[in-house]
Amino acid sequence: MGWGDLGAFGEPSKETPNLDQMASEGMLFLDFYTANPLCSPSRAALLTGRLPVRNGFYTTNAHARNAYTPQDIVGGIPDSELLLPEMLKKAGYVNKIIGKWHLGHRPQFHPLKHGFDEWFGSPNCHFGPFDNRALPNIPVYRDWEMIGSYRLDFKIDLKTGEANLTQIYLQEALDFISKQQASQQPFFLYWAIDATHAPVYASKPFLGTSQRGLYGDAVREIDDSIGKMLKHLQKLGISENTFVFFTSDNGAALISAPKQGGSNGRFLCGKQTTFEGGMREPAIAWWPGHIPAGGVSHQLGNVMDLFTTSLSLAGLQPPSDRQIDGIDLLPAILQGKLIDRPIFYYRGNEMMAVRVGLYKAHYWTWSNSWEEYSKGIDFCPGQNVTGVTTHTQEEHTTLPLLFHLGRDPGEKYPLSFASDEYQRAMDRISIVVQQHRATMVPGVPQLNVCDKAVMNWSPPGCGKLGKCLKPPKSDPQKCFWPH
Amino acid sequence: MGWGDLGAFGEPSKETPNLDQMASEGMLFLDFYTANPLCSPSRAALLTGRLPVRNGFYTTNAHARNAYTPQDIVGGIPDSELLLPEMLKKAGYVNKIIGKWHLGHRPQFHPLKHGFDEWFGSPNCHFGPFDNRALPNIPVYRDWEMIGSYRLDFKIDLKTGEANLTQIYLQEALDFISKQQASQQPFFLYWAIDATHAPVYASKPFLGTSQRGLYGDAVREIDDSIGKMLKHLQKLGISENTFVFFTSDNGAALISAPKQGGSNGRFLCGKQTTFEGGMREPAIAWWPGHIPAGGVSHQLGNVMDLFTTSLSLAGLQPPSDRQIDGIDLLPAILQGKLIDRPIFYYRGNEMMAVRVGLYKAHYWTWSNSWEEYSKGIDFCPGQNVTGVTTHTQEEHTTLPLLFHLGRDPGEKYPLSFASDEYQRAMDRISIVVQQHRATMVPGVPQLNVCDKAVMNWSPPGCGKLGKCLKPPKSDPQKCFWPH
Repeated sequence: MGWGDLGAFGEPSKETPNLDQMASEGMLFLDFYTANPLCSPSRAALLTGRLPVRNGFYTTNAHARNAYTPQDIVGGIPDSELLLPEMLKKAGYVNKIIGKWHLGHRPQFHPLKHGFDEWFGSPNCHFGPFDNRALPNIPVYRDWEMIGSYRLDFKIDLKTGEANLTQIYLQEALDFISKQQASQQPFFLYWAIDATHAPVYASKPFLGTSQRGLYGDAVREIDDSIGKMLKHLQKLGISENTFVFFTSDNGAALISAPKQGGSNGRFLCGKQTTFEGGMREPAIAWWPGHIPAGGVSHQLGNVMDLFTTSLSLAGLQPPSDRQIDGIDLLPAILQGKLIDRPIFYYRGNEMMAVRVGLYKAHYWTWSNSWEEYSKGIDFCPGQNVTGVTTHTQEEHTTLPLLFHLGRDPGEKYPLSFASDEYQRAMDRISIVVQQHRATMVPGVPQLNVCDKAVMNWSPPGCGKLGKCLKPPKSDPQKCFWPH
Repeated sequence: MGWGDLGAFGEPSKETPNLDQMASEGMLFLDFYTANPLCSPSRAALLTGRLPVRNGFYTTNAHARNAYTPQDIVGGIPDSELLLPEMLKKAGYVNKIIGKWHLGHRPQFHPLKHGFDEWFGSPNCHFGPFDNRALPNIPVYRDWEMIGSYRLDFKIDLKTGEANLTQIYLQEALDFISKQQASQQPFFLYWAIDATHAPVYASKPFLGTSQRGLYGDAVREIDDSIGKMLKHLQKLGISENTFVFFTSDNGAALISAPKQGGSNGRFLCGKQTTFEGGMREPAIAWWPGHIPAGGVSHQLGNVMDLFTTSLSLAGLQPPSDRQIDGIDLLPAILQGKLIDRPIFYYRGNEMMAVRVGLYKAHYWTWSNSWEEYSKGIDFCPGQNVTGVTTHTQEEHTTLPLLFHLGRDPGEKYPLSFASDEYQRAMDRISIVVQQHRATMVPGVPQLNVCDKAVMNWSPPGCGKLGKCLKPPKSDPQKCFWPH
């Protein structure tokens, strides 16, 4: 989902009444970011409070490449990482993940080995394969074992776009909340659906209901689901005791547009890029009785902050034996404070850009390669800013391209290198970057090696279902990351 | 001002709390248009309820050219046109225009000759000249006579951007409202300020207060002014008896960006073009006790509707002796109805595009000429949609370029000519266009002839001020309209 996909963020069809109401009852974050322009690293960052370059969710196979966890990925979340649910357990929380895990699908990476008590969902995204022949389908797990797979058991009609997945995930969430309320146990629910990711789907009651086509149908279904969850919390009388945060793991994928592509508002480019369209996200905090209704925050926020903020809410301290990038947002949320902190934009282990205040400095620019672009893969369709949306990796490390995101949120007008404003801003930014680099200890890259043998051929539980497939011989290769 | 300039429409700085509140107390129009991508024709259309091609506010000097009323324009609003204030007089309304008239500055075009009872403001925009030598300054009128001129008497500091104009216009409005309330007379106030037009200005308390720079300062001052007017109506106890509508006369001028340029959200291009960025406008209706709070309308609306809607509110019928393009929006505003009606996008007397439902068909596309573009005049900075944002006038009359504005509000993906959807939509659109053309009787074009002799050399009242200048010898020429 992208920054511009909600009515509250200016989507012209304004079809998200529940999320818009959530914002009007809570706090809208206008300057909130994900940790990476791609799903897996962002989700790893959310759960660890650490940049992907620290927690290992990156690649060094080539310079400045996005990487994630497809089925043949060998790596996953290292045991050395401390995940939010592991921490929350110490305070008596019951933790559930519903939906896409995406932090590795081999046994050692299983979410129940990393702090979650319950899981309903899949290790990977719901896209293909769908025939379970040449390659295995994506399994759907309940807790430790698979209970079926996408397409075969959890239907996705690629022709009509019909699928009940979001409804199933909603029901799981409502049930879990009810159960926790009944048992009076504090809970952490990570509702990590994969809807709006291509191939886009929605359940029948939502199909054809949006001005925006199938993508809009999916957004409406998510909106409706969030509304139902919030109402459920209210009905159970625990809304004033439950902190809810809504956001996304990367900007809208514009390569799927117009049929399946979302909106990043007026921001430049989309998913896969370190322009604003790739990493600025819709974000809403909701906690009736605590967060002032109708609040609007310009706090620079990041999904990693949800780690630290959640710990703070649970009365826990973040781990002190490692660098944590997330900050505690509670002063911003509850007292309207503005905490000075930078936002870093990475591709692989390359810091592409940094935001400090309203200034954003690009140290590297790249949309994607000419080779990919000439095949029609365009992360910035209809947009072309000379020298900025480049199809070769352009280095600006000695003289970064600087934008003022207040006057120029669309990153179209780099400031003059000769201006006083440039000099003043870069003086400030350079110190931030220097500090960041000086203390940077990259983790072991987890997304370098791929091997068809590690795919979901025989997930735990496959035997009971008669769904075990025979893996091919192991043949580890460098993963190929084109952009 | 552009569609994306308000917080309620997704401007990322969200600095328009008063307009956003006006929307939350009233009704937000998401599909509201101006009648032309340029100021004068739009304002003429608003006041006559008729397309510029009917009321004469267009040129035939070259194909598909935008035209307005600079100081040397010979034409203006014809006596044969019936303006909203002329009509409202019949129902006992007192009518005032505050700000930019822009419907011709020669004596016969004076607003007090066209139904207004009072005027405070200027006949033209506030841009140069500013030295009153080679060319005369823009005069500022109170009613029949000039009382000074921009820059000399009404200061605009081009260096700091400081000017008190919006404050002066606000005070005029508050005073007029108070006076009307005291005398118990119904009133029509046309608050036609020119703020946010380049050169952008704001008064001292607003300078430097916006994330967006000087343009944002100007927006904030307008926002603040609207807030004060609405509060004034409430304080006087007449808010439930006063219909207020906020909108703009064209999309944000992107050539002024980033220092003085506004935002058209995610829409394509800006002022001067018939893409959505040039003509879709922010729009809010407010009438406490009548309009349901927090309403959102997808009614296709147009500034021309304000003519017909205002007449309806005053219990009057629109003139029956001429084609009126504006419709009565009250069913949409008060009962949430959706009225099926098209939107036409003109440049000069050429119908460039038409919107029917969610479909928009371009019969001609043009941003501007290569000659202008090569000089750096760019109406679509950073945007480039092949075959759409063209620098030659491209004719598509036999096979229009068709966009679905729900799935593709940014006009980036023309529908396939071979698709069923294209055929179905064009079948419907063709009938609308045929009907439109069959009944089109263009007015006498008013914006063809320019003459330096007609400039504001000696406006009425100049003698008392010792400000009369000697006009040069009359030398009528075809006006040059480059885009």
